[in-house]
Amino acid sequence: MENAIDTVWVAICAAMIFQMEGGFALLESGFLRRKNAMAIIVKVIVDICFGGLAFFLIGYGLMFGTSSGFLGMDIGYTLGLSPNANIPDSIFWFLQMGFAVAAISIISGGVAERMKIWAYIIYVFIFVAFIYPIAAGWIWNANGWLFVGFNGVGMNDFAGSAAVHAVGGWSALAAVMVLGARHGKYNADGSANAFPGHNLPLAAIGAFILWFGWFGFNPGSTLGAVGNWDIIGKVAMNTFLASAAGGIGTMVYTQLRYGAIDPSMVINGVLAGLVAITAGCNVMDPIFAVLTGLIAGVIVDIAVVTFDKMHIDDPVGAIAVHGVNGSFGTLAVGLFASKGGLFTTGEFTLLGVQAIGLIAVSVFAFSSSYLVMMAIKRTIGVRLAKKDEIIGADLAEYKTSAYSIFE
Amino acid sequence: MENAIDTVWVAICAAMIFQMEGGFALLESGFLRRKNAMAIIVKVIVDICFGGLAFFLIGYGLMFGTSSGFLGMDIGYTLGLSPNANIPDSIFWFLQMGFAVAAISIISGGVAERMKIWAYIIYVFIFVAFIYPIAAGWIWNANGWLFVGFNGVGMNDFAGSAAVHAVGGWSALAAVMVLGARHGKYNADGSANAFPGHNLPLAAIGAFILWFGWFGFNPGSTLGAVGNWDIIGKVAMNTFLASAAGGIGTMVYTQLRYGAIDPSMVINGVLAGLVAITAGCNVMDPIFAVLTGLIAGVIVDIAVVTFDKMHIDDPVGAIAVHGVNGSFGTLAVGLFASKGGLFTTGEFTLLGVQAIGLIAVSVFAFSSSYLVMMAIKRTIGVRLAKKDEIIGADLAEYKTSAYSIFE
Amino acid sequence: MENAIDTVWVAICAAMIFQMEGGFALLESGFLRRKNAMAIIVKVIVDICFGGLAFFLIGYGLMFGTSSGFLGMDIGYTLGLSPNANIPDSIFWFLQMGFAVAAISIISGGVAERMKIWAYIIYVFIFVAFIYPIAAGWIWNANGWLFVGFNGVGMNDFAGSAAVHAVGGWSALAAVMVLGARHGKYNADGSANAFPGHNLPLAAIGAFILWFGWFGFNPGSTLGAVGNWDIIGKVAMNTFLASAAGGIGTMVYTQLRYGAIDPSMVINGVLAGLVAITAGCNVMDPIFAVLTGLIAGVIVDIAVVTFDKMHIDDPVGAIAVHGVNGSFGTLAVGLFASKGGLFTTGEFTLLGVQAIGLIAVSVFAFSSSYLVMMAIKRTIGVRLAKKDEIIGADLAEYKTSAYSIFE
Repeated sequence: MENAIDTVWVAICAAMIFQMEGGFALLESGFLRRKNAMAIIVKVIVDICFGGLAFFLIGYGLMFGTSSGFLGMDIGYTLGLSPNANIPDSIFWFLQMGFAVAAISIISGGVAERMKIWAYIIYVFIFVAFIYPIAAGWIWNANGWLFVGFNGVGMNDFAGSAAVHAVGGWSALAAVMVLGARHGKYNADGSANAFPGHNLPLAAIGAFILWFGWFGFNPGSTLGAVGNWDIIGKVAMNTFLASAAGGIGTMVYTQLRYGAIDPSMVINGVLAGLVAITAGCNVMDPIFAVLTGLIAGVIVDIAVVTFDKMHIDDPVGAIAVHGVNGSFGTLAVGLFASKGGLFTTGEFTLLGVQAIGLIAVSVFAFSSSYLVMMAIKRTIGVRLAKKDEIIGADLAEYKTSAYSIFE
Repeated sequence: MENAIDTVWVAICAAMIFQMEGGFALLESGFLRRKNAMAIIVKVIVDICFGGLAFFLIGYGLMFGTSSGFLGMDIGYTLGLSPNANIPDSIFWFLQMGFAVAAISIISGGVAERMKIWAYIIYVFIFVAFIYPIAAGWIWNANGWLFVGFNGVGMNDFAGSAAVHAVGGWSALAAVMVLGARHGKYNADGSANAFPGHNLPLAAIGAFILWFGWFGFNPGSTLGAVGNWDIIGKVAMNTFLASAAGGIGTMVYTQLRYGAIDPSMVINGVLAGLVAITAGCNVMDPIFAVLTGLIAGVIVDIAVVTFDKMHIDDPVGAIAVHGVNGSFGTLAVGLFASKGGLFTTGEFTLLGVQAIGLIAVSVFAFSSSYLVMMAIKRTIGVRLAKKDEIIGADLAEYKTSAYSIFE
Repeated sequence: MENAIDTVWVAICAAMIFQMEGGFALLESGFLRRKNAMAIIVKVIVDICFGGLAFFLIGYGLMFGTSSGFLGMDIGYTLGLSPNANIPDSIFWFLQMGFAVAAISIISGGVAERMKIWAYIIYVFIFVAFIYPIAAGWIWNANGWLFVGFNGVGMNDFAGSAAVHAVGGWSALAAVMVLGARHGKYNADGSANAFPGHNLPLAAIGAFILWFGWFGFNPGSTLGAVGNWDIIGKVAMNTFLASAAGGIGTMVYTQLRYGAIDPSMVINGVLAGLVAITAGCNVMDPIFAVLTGLIAGVIVDIAVVTFDKMHIDDPVGAIAVHGVNGSFGTLAVGLFASKGGLFTTGEFTLLGVQAIGLIAVSVFAFSSSYLVMMAIKRTIGVRLAKKDEIIGADLAEYKTSAYSIFE
């Protein structure tokens, strides 16, 4: 019966995590221009299909296989690697596949509107087969060097502010830097042109799907319910509180700073709160979840503007939401955790471990993503032809249009 | 293990209830005019963010705290108040928060297209901090005067036809009366102009999300599965049957009355069936669930037309769906319950208790909502300036547009 | 407690299956022309409402009642028929209702843009009351002649590649043949005109909803978790792998065959993979799930083109996805099952049983659907008037428009 309970719990959470892919696709599509509305959806389907296959064939074993601390020594789907022996390997694989394709889907938003599809497919395969599982395995493999940690204090990255969001976000930054900005985004005098999202209700659909899915993403990281039922509640509540506070943070900040609430940024504020609480939802008191979310909701607004000033062209704010707030959330554990947090108990060890872990996975992800993108650029090329970018990827790459005007 | 089972059940149902907020947002957006399509989505995000915070800081303790019968004597999130000791307080809180923000989201539809956002934020906070928890606590707090009832017969409002839907619906009526009708809705001769929804498929997305969520809303109100597994099935089946019958009721009625099925009203008919069965899904035989739904599917059509004739401008039919059918559903328990129903056993007591409870929470909700709206009106004002209303809230309040025509 | 666990599992899977109806509605709406965008959503709501009622009043008992092998001898909802005695009859009914309305929703896509609504309502009632339950009962009733099988080898149709998808798909073929092609679809010289979908992101929303729901559809067919927890994981993993491979199959095929990935066909490729693995997800090793999906993703592309050449006008590809790949998936069990598969163990018996079962239900479904459509055609008529078809069903039948241009 314990097997049954834990399997039911993980199976449903895994399905909820999987459906977040629809959320990524629609959020990104709505935030982009009409001429690329279907191309980005194809990219997210690529994340699922090629990413899922790469995790099956290669990534899973590198992440969870018997490890020296830096690399799992199995290839692809292998029996016996689930940390919770109560559940079948297959359902643990399905859950972890959901995290892996979530990480690559962060990147799809960053490279949107200008990266060639087959170049992207190659990138997806390499990212999910190697980059993500190596970095995330350091944190989540029971022998990973960050899981083990220092002086008996392991890194606490419950559902992956670092392993999923920072890794995805900083990989996206590298990819964006190699790609360059979209044609017409920045003017000769350094100013930026706004490319408003073509369908904000569509983006909102995506955001609501992601918001729902996070209640599988975070609570499901218990990997079971029999020994963890009390954690499930705490995690769900903290996840909610941080998201609500993230929305409030952005509403208040944009009202005060710009004189009006910015609806698109409110969506990003909610997501920023979710990303930031993902590492620490299991170890914070509720009031600190609120605080974490509030801060994240402000940071994301500042980050979006800052990247734009640096001419880092991040079409849907993926780097600001996932990279910046995944990093903040990882450090927030060291600040606000009930046990070992700097502000709660005055201790520095946990914060140090979190910082080391964050830097390690971020540097690894950024560097390897940069190298992979450069290798693709030098071989088959990464960018659409300028004329194709101008007419839009939907027509140029797929000979289609998201919205037909015919009758 | 009992803890694990009950927690898994409640955690998932709570997530499903939470995701209904996306349903409210998209349903309302699709039924409104294009120029207010994002503004209503912002309002529903406000419901979640500010409503969730108000319930955390104040409302929860007033609703479930140690009560004299009329008011809980705790403030905000407090340990030890879950009626099912098998589940953590945090997950009970998360579930109840979902009900609270559902109630306020009913109101967001009523006040759409003309209420100022910061005035609405204040209203949301007060509603979720005070109005909803006090009224709902009468019914759901184990010491609430309606929970206790009369002559040993307590009020049966299983998942909140009265506590959530009637309270939300009649509060919306008061808010709408204070606000007044939208500019241009009613002509000098008393006739009404139709403001057709700008995106009916978007409204349908919202309706499907709500429909799905109701299978968390109603069955999840068992608060556990170990002692209630047989009730879960009954509730799910009755919930489905009433919704199907609600759709059929509207299809047949609009075909006969107007010569054509009205797709928008069919959506409202399904929702009316869901709202009406919410009180009695645990105590009715399936055939009475069908009957309840059928009646609801007709009532809602008549109610929409009637409110329009009375110049009560309810843009998405929120008062007709939730106020009228929440009330009907509360009374339907007294008519059709297998035990104690007037038509099934010839007894009047249960119907009396249901009626008293319904009147009590409805009068309280309407009155307090009216007072709060009047207080806001007299201070910072509740309505958009006429010119802002005419250009639409998206542009006037947020300097944005739901659908960009740029490329 | 076993009751509680199994009920929780089935209740949630049933809700996930039910929400697939939203997926059907939006997928079909997005793939159709704008002038029929709401009419198809009404049709799917009819599937749910009238289909659900027909299954409650008649179909369920014919499907699961005490059976001679060919027909259950009960009428409608009857207690005591659930194969898993751990769960209440009501939740088993709710789950099975979800399968029944999924089957009819396949047909709604085939007859789209030209079938009159009240004629469709009659068809829906007859299909769900009689055609589907009789055919599916042969396979899933414990006394059904295909469940029993031959030489001790029963048909393996785990979640219904044959019972739901082939039955629905071949019934749709019959209906489409009686209806005829849409006005203007085929030219005098035999060539076809493309009618591109009016809103591909809307179709993608539907696809993501269906994809998510399939993780209730397939794993939920365990009907419980206590004795089946290990199967749940296997089924979920295989379901995912086949869908990913289906997407890859279509991407590679359309790139090689037409020089560009076809986004609409990728959606159908993913669905084809899901449909094909539905029969054998419980008996295949993962690598064969990948293979099944890959083949399905290619077959569907060829089938769509082939039907078009035959002037069988299938507006959303329902026959190609569900009829063809439901059939392929049923046979794939006989080819790839770990035990008894032709390619895995060299045995022919299972493949023979699968083929006989597939032919039996397909012929029965096609024939009875044809007869019912002809009977309706000869009486009240099945097709919209030509002028109504040209102006579109939204305006002609419902006096409405999916997208209002008013403000």
